[in-house]
Amino acid sequence: MKNSSTLTSLISSTEPMLAVFSDHNSIACMLDVEAALARAEVRNQVIPEQALAAIEAACEVELIDFASLAHAAASAGNLAIPLIKQLTANVAKADAAAAKYVHWGATSQDVMDTALVLQLRQALDLIDADLLLLNAALAALAGRHRDTVMVGRTWMQHALPVSFGMKVASWLDGMLRHQQRLREVRKQILVVQCGGAAGTLASLADKAGGVAAALAEELDLGLPDMPWHVQRDRIAEVATVMGLLVGSLGKMARDISLLSQTDVAEVAEPEQAGRGGSSAMPHKRNPVGCAVALSAAVRVPGLVSTMLSGMVQENERALGGWQAEWDTLPDIMRLAAGSLAQMKQVAAGLTVDTARMRLNLDATHGQIMAEAVTLALGRSIGRMAAHQLVEKACHEAVAQQKHLRDVLAQDATVGAHLSGDDLSKLLDPALYTGQAAAFVDKVLASWSAGKRN
Amino acid sequence: MKNSSTLTSLISSTEPMLAVFSDHNSIACMLDVEAALARAEVRNQVIPEQALAAIEAACEVELIDFASLAHAAASAGNLAIPLIKQLTANVAKADAAAAKYVHWGATSQDVMDTALVLQLRQALDLIDADLLLLNAALAALAGRHRDTVMVGRTWMQHALPVSFGMKVASWLDGMLRHQQRLREVRKQILVVQCGGAAGTLASLADKAGGVAAALAEELDLGLPDMPWHVQRDRIAEVATVMGLLVGSLGKMARDISLLSQTDVAEVAEPEQAGRGGSSAMPHKRNPVGCAVALSAAVRVPGLVSTMLSGMVQENERALGGWQAEWDTLPDIMRLAAGSLAQMKQVAAGLTVDTARMRLNLDATHGQIMAEAVTLALGRSIGRMAAHQLVEKACHEAVAQQKHLRDVLAQDATVGAHLSGDDLSKLLDPALYTGQAAAFVDKVLASWSAGKRN
Amino acid sequence: MKNSSTLTSLISSTEPMLAVFSDHNSIACMLDVEAALARAEVRNQVIPEQALAAIEAACEVELIDFASLAHAAASAGNLAIPLIKQLTANVAKADAAAAKYVHWGATSQDVMDTALVLQLRQALDLIDADLLLLNAALAALAGRHRDTVMVGRTWMQHALPVSFGMKVASWLDGMLRHQQRLREVRKQILVVQCGGAAGTLASLADKAGGVAAALAEELDLGLPDMPWHVQRDRIAEVATVMGLLVGSLGKMARDISLLSQTDVAEVAEPEQAGRGGSSAMPHKRNPVGCAVALSAAVRVPGLVSTMLSGMVQENERALGGWQAEWDTLPDIMRLAAGSLAQMKQVAAGLTVDTARMRLNLDATHGQIMAEAVTLALGRSIGRMAAHQLVEKACHEAVAQQKHLRDVLAQDATVGAHLSGDDLSKLLDPALYTGQAAAFVDKVLASWSAGKRN
Amino acid sequence: MKNSSTLTSLISSTEPMLAVFSDHNSIACMLDVEAALARAEVRNQVIPEQALAAIEAACEVELIDFASLAHAAASAGNLAIPLIKQLTANVAKADAAAAKYVHWGATSQDVMDTALVLQLRQALDLIDADLLLLNAALAALAGRHRDTVMVGRTWMQHALPVSFGMKVASWLDGMLRHQQRLREVRKQILVVQCGGAAGTLASLADKAGGVAAALAEELDLGLPDMPWHVQRDRIAEVATVMGLLVGSLGKMARDISLLSQTDVAEVAEPEQAGRGGSSAMPHKRNPVGCAVALSAAVRVPGLVSTMLSGMVQENERALGGWQAEWDTLPDIMRLAAGSLAQMKQVAAGLTVDTARMRLNLDATHGQIMAEAVTLALGRSIGRMAAHQLVEKACHEAVAQQKHLRDVLAQDATVGAHLSGDDLSKLLDPALYTGQAAAFVDKVLASWSAGKRN
Repeated sequence: MKNSSTLTSLISSTEPMLAVFSDHNSIACMLDVEAALARAEVRNQVIPEQALAAIEAACEVELIDFASLAHAAASAGNLAIPLIKQLTANVAKADAAAAKYVHWGATSQDVMDTALVLQLRQALDLIDADLLLLNAALAALAGRHRDTVMVGRTWMQHALPVSFGMKVASWLDGMLRHQQRLREVRKQILVVQCGGAAGTLASLADKAGGVAAALAEELDLGLPDMPWHVQRDRIAEVATVMGLLVGSLGKMARDISLLSQTDVAEVAEPEQAGRGGSSAMPHKRNPVGCAVALSAAVRVPGLVSTMLSGMVQENERALGGWQAEWDTLPDIMRLAAGSLAQMKQVAAGLTVDTARMRLNLDATHGQIMAEAVTLALGRSIGRMAAHQLVEKACHEAVAQQKHLRDVLAQDATVGAHLSGDDLSKLLDPALYTGQAAAFVDKVLASWSAGKRN
Repeated sequence: MKNSSTLTSLISSTEPMLAVFSDHNSIACMLDVEAALARAEVRNQVIPEQALAAIEAACEVELIDFASLAHAAASAGNLAIPLIKQLTANVAKADAAAAKYVHWGATSQDVMDTALVLQLRQALDLIDADLLLLNAALAALAGRHRDTVMVGRTWMQHALPVSFGMKVASWLDGMLRHQQRLREVRKQILVVQCGGAAGTLASLADKAGGVAAALAEELDLGLPDMPWHVQRDRIAEVATVMGLLVGSLGKMARDISLLSQTDVAEVAEPEQAGRGGSSAMPHKRNPVGCAVALSAAVRVPGLVSTMLSGMVQENERALGGWQAEWDTLPDIMRLAAGSLAQMKQVAAGLTVDTARMRLNLDATHGQIMAEAVTLALGRSIGRMAAHQLVEKACHEAVAQQKHLRDVLAQDATVGAHLSGDDLSKLLDPALYTGQAAAFVDKVLASWSAGKRN
Repeated sequence: MKNSSTLTSLISSTEPMLAVFSDHNSIACMLDVEAALARAEVRNQVIPEQALAAIEAACEVELIDFASLAHAAASAGNLAIPLIKQLTANVAKADAAAAKYVHWGATSQDVMDTALVLQLRQALDLIDADLLLLNAALAALAGRHRDTVMVGRTWMQHALPVSFGMKVASWLDGMLRHQQRLREVRKQILVVQCGGAAGTLASLADKAGGVAAALAEELDLGLPDMPWHVQRDRIAEVATVMGLLVGSLGKMARDISLLSQTDVAEVAEPEQAGRGGSSAMPHKRNPVGCAVALSAAVRVPGLVSTMLSGMVQENERALGGWQAEWDTLPDIMRLAAGSLAQMKQVAAGLTVDTARMRLNLDATHGQIMAEAVTLALGRSIGRMAAHQLVEKACHEAVAQQKHLRDVLAQDATVGAHLSGDDLSKLLDPALYTGQAAAFVDKVLASWSAGKRN
Repeated sequence: MKNSSTLTSLISSTEPMLAVFSDHNSIACMLDVEAALARAEVRNQVIPEQALAAIEAACEVELIDFASLAHAAASAGNLAIPLIKQLTANVAKADAAAAKYVHWGATSQDVMDTALVLQLRQALDLIDADLLLLNAALAALAGRHRDTVMVGRTWMQHALPVSFGMKVASWLDGMLRHQQRLREVRKQILVVQCGGAAGTLASLADKAGGVAAALAEELDLGLPDMPWHVQRDRIAEVATVMGLLVGSLGKMARDISLLSQTDVAEVAEPEQAGRGGSSAMPHKRNPVGCAVALSAAVRVPGLVSTMLSGMVQENERALGGWQAEWDTLPDIMRLAAGSLAQMKQVAAGLTVDTARMRLNLDATHGQIMAEAVTLALGRSIGRMAAHQLVEKACHEAVAQQKHLRDVLAQDATVGAHLSGDDLSKLLDPALYTGQAAAFVDKVLASWSAGKRN
């Protein structure tokens, strides 16, 4: 990283992703494209073989003067123009004849877009790797807690028993779909951009097809049917897939942060020195991983909307829409990486308090089992009648601070249809988790099958 | 459509899509789900077969009192709760015993989500059909204008010759990728939602698996590994795919509107009585189709960001995020349909003025061919030197209001390397469209191959 | 309301605001503008006085055929063009001579924008009125709970004691700023739009100034320096002010929903028959008001971004940006009204469980008082040393399930500096709410002063 | 600037604004707050006077180790915690006794928010200054071209004559409103944040009020009624005001870029060496200033939506919403500054080709004067009849490639009501600019009056 990350960037992202979108790597990737272009043009007899050595030697990021580049970029309106000037000047120092073949027949956007694709390949590799690790951690957690019963909460109210394993499996289930989406988006994005100044490659005359194919080969990228310089759906799709991933990670973080509340205390982020402390309150263990993921989930949607807005580009090169991508897509990738890394770490080291989970099930004195009783009674007296009876009993239990069992036991209608033993079983949360375990098993089977692909 | 479209909705959408997301169809789909649930539960001996006829008969949208539904929904916080009350009351009128089996074991969100999936299937069918028609129109247009040379414009300035066929092929190229994305997203979204109150299906005890599978079968939907009520990536992905489509349609509309300017006049939207007139200026033919597509491209990104923001949902049912989807996704589908329908119509009937295209190529007195000359000279004197020489000649041509050819013809360096005949060929736009025709052919081949899939 | 609200619109908005942005009222306001224009033009001798009666009589919404309007709008690209056609035809039926003076010299956007301003005046009146009521309810609540001590939570963890009155005052404090913003934005937006086809009012020749001033007077609106048809900051500012308001209401709803959790149970939304019930779980009281406000807070930011994106309009009339406003701003107003109405109702009837608030303060066995101890010790041994000592004691208390007091009492360093009585006082939450009451008093004084303005 | 701008940041922003939001200045402002806090606490006898010198001496940005700060921030979750650790350690080196009084009674967010306010003051000063310069340039331009007649374009079609002065006055009119908004927002945001760990300032006991007031005084900021740490409307409003400004600048840039098209050529951005050149096409002068402003207008709306989304913060400190602001608001300020600086430069040096403006008015062979003829005829034969007659004549003129005058001259109805001389005057654009000059005068008067405030 050279001159391109800020003090807070390590909070919201990761070092490897910061490195991918550092100025240093951006320039390095652009130079890789220039070198590959020169090789492709030598292979197609577009430029002389003798020029290659000097060009390749100059395509070295350490030779670039970043400060003058930044100032020249401000006037030129993009990075490629001044970079190519520096590169040409550097080549000329070694081999004046070679200098005229630098960047031959290409345009700024060819270099910038293809370099971006190279960076995205690195970035997607990082995302893929961390997603695999997150999923492994989630699979382990779901398996371990397949039968850990806990409160299910809807509308932020206690609703019904669920299992912690099922909750984790639900996170994993979404993540498995993200793996598929990442596979699909790689197919679309990992292609070369090679169109010349207006997309026709006229500058390369009859060698154009050969050069484009060779350039793709040199960089191990696909060759698309035609240049996509103003068709930005490929680029924007990377953003939307990240948006979906960040949304799912945010949901996971929302759940964990809610379960980590002092008032709930069912889970806690992994403990680690210097992490999540408070400057004023020494007893606290703040869910800093969740904060990162939730912050990303607040930020990325707006950034995705920028990428979509930017798709409306003018004719053969945009005035605003393309430029809007330059910092936005890197921000999205950085935030996605940060969110994913934090949730990976949280999933791997999550503290789960199964005793507290069990305890919280009793907090409503049996009311969480209202549905089970309603359904059982419904079989005899109809769903609506049962609903009303149990609703009334619940209100009574609250008003009188009694256990729902005690209220129901005194109800004649209930007594007519359910024995005391029936009632006990109906009020046991562990007997009312339905398909929770089956769902865990299905998702783990899909995860396991996915690993073999 | 009943009570659910506004006066302006036909400007921004289409009648069939308005119908899909009308109140009438929303309720009809929810009732379809309730009927299918009853059948699935009869098949699994969860509810008695005798109850079925009354339930199915009552699952008829014409029987629903919409006004009272709207008011009850305001208190209940969703539509399903009061709908099920009405439905149960209606069943009870015919068969009091059957009424208690309405909506058995399900929760509001099961019905609302599955009904939404049914609506999305209808909506995606409409989108698919119009996209095929758009693509056929674009393919025809690209083929017809494969060799129509025109000005390529970058940064809104004349840059280099391109062909109109290539420009159209570039639109089509993106649309073919959208066809693929639509295929992928259908696989993800066309699944049943069946989880009961907290996602465990505990209410259906050991019949749960059978009922869920039968429900999916009844509705011809897939059965997912587990309920996805709080994992909204499936729903949000529909939004993002529409966002990408609308962005590409917006790019196409931006291009057409720029080419339709009175000052450019290379294309015009199809003429049609009452369309695009101005109340104050009778001579105008406003690009109203483009306005619809561009307006959609302004609106949809923000709506997609809402869908992504809404993914951060709490535990087993959200407080805000789910509710935020209800009007947002329909808006996205409506706007996508409207944009697509307009662009389909525009593409099918576009007026193309090839003579004006040719004329505009001469507007810069040869400067549009500067690159061709630069490259030719560059082969002799180096790219940078050639660039500087031609840049100077261009400025001179502008200052002296001369044709670039005349300025170059008087330059000694040029004379040393290029004959008058060379210069004439180098300054002919039609000879400098590079791979334009080849790109058209490739995209048309892909389009043609896609049709066979 | 005619044909313009949906089944779910009463969940997310209010009847009065739905009425303001109904098709019926949109057309009524446009007709009011047409009638006022005719009067203004009679006053300035632009059109003959005899024409006025027929025009005014026809400017009656009940005379408009909405169905044909909707279809004609789809072709014309806006509502005004076909409306003026209908209006002209209706005038002609009564007075053929008068018909030619309908809409004299104006353009569609003059009518649409000025009608929108009339609707916004009604809408802002509704918002203002509800905001006053909300603030009165908050003031009462803050006053009542000025000294109700409760847990302050940071990072969703118990942090320090606060008072419930201070929390409410903090909501009110923001709302008072929104009152100011609403006053400012009214000044900007309540102006007439009167520019004719391209903004010059050339169609009214030397009568233009007089007509514009008279039109403003007729409608009781301000007269701006010049038309603002493509300078949309006035319109967009209404959206941003609503965005800020909805954000603050969302924060209030987030707080209330967190405090309403079954696990916290410090407050509850007002109980009301049919409100917040669950179809499957009879015991629940869902925070449906908060859900509405939180849903609005998810939706409005994206809609505001649309309004800002739409500001980039082309020359003298936009192609996309203006059209994007048409449904977006009404959506924003509707959602703001719904959120505000719900929070007003919640604030007015909020159930506050002060006993539970007190109970929850003890949940961490004294750890919530860690800061007080740290500060007291810090005076003797330094802030960092005190911090470390208390942090260690907190960890020990957790590990050994002891009260913090007991751990601290056994610490020699503590003993050296604090007596048992000191420790007791330091560990009493009610003695450690700092400026909470003072802040309540200040905000209430500002509220009270504001009422007198 | 230390380590916090990227290679491309000078394209989209300005050096002074990059400096305001550099890491270096962020830390400097936080240290200014710490020093001011110490002074305020000495003044209130909270900490001993002897501690002050060592604390003030250590509050020097050059003493901070940025690299270790970045890594510690990643664990701590914010910058303030590790900064205060470093600061305390640095104080301790000089004066061990003083070290315990660093950051006394405050919390991280007090320091971060107040430092942000200090940065925003610097940032708003920069914006204000550039806006004044932009407005002066626009006022000069509007005055100079008060009577320069040009084509008015609606829906991107030639519509009616306007004046260039009026177009510029329309930009200026919006900018004058932004000046007012900036004044209002300063009142709201230039206040101190001082609440301690949960907003009660309990840590400062009865000295709290005095310390807060003294801190505000030391920093020349206002003292709000109460802390606003979780009421983010102040912060978000800065974002929305910038959003409105960037939208208006984007509109101006859209206009200029459209008028700069090679096909229109009525204006051009100021010429400057190395600015707006193309690597491949030497003859081009790209509107790079407009590209910056348009790119900002694509990016800022999404960022504003993030700020609004982030307002929904939890209880006494947020988990995600606050963190989402950290990089977003600086991005907004940077982009606003960049857009404003470019448009200021463009306005000051804009090349205006009045001859081309006049030429383009004739491009439609008189059709641009259709309204004038319609109105004149309308006085005799009614608006609708005149509209139809002129519409038909326009179509005929296009079809037969004639001037509208010639078609109209041969029409009997026209002949019956208008003389040839009437027709000539009616078809002269310069006689049909209506109130254009009057509007320019009004806006310039408002600008002039504003300067005296």
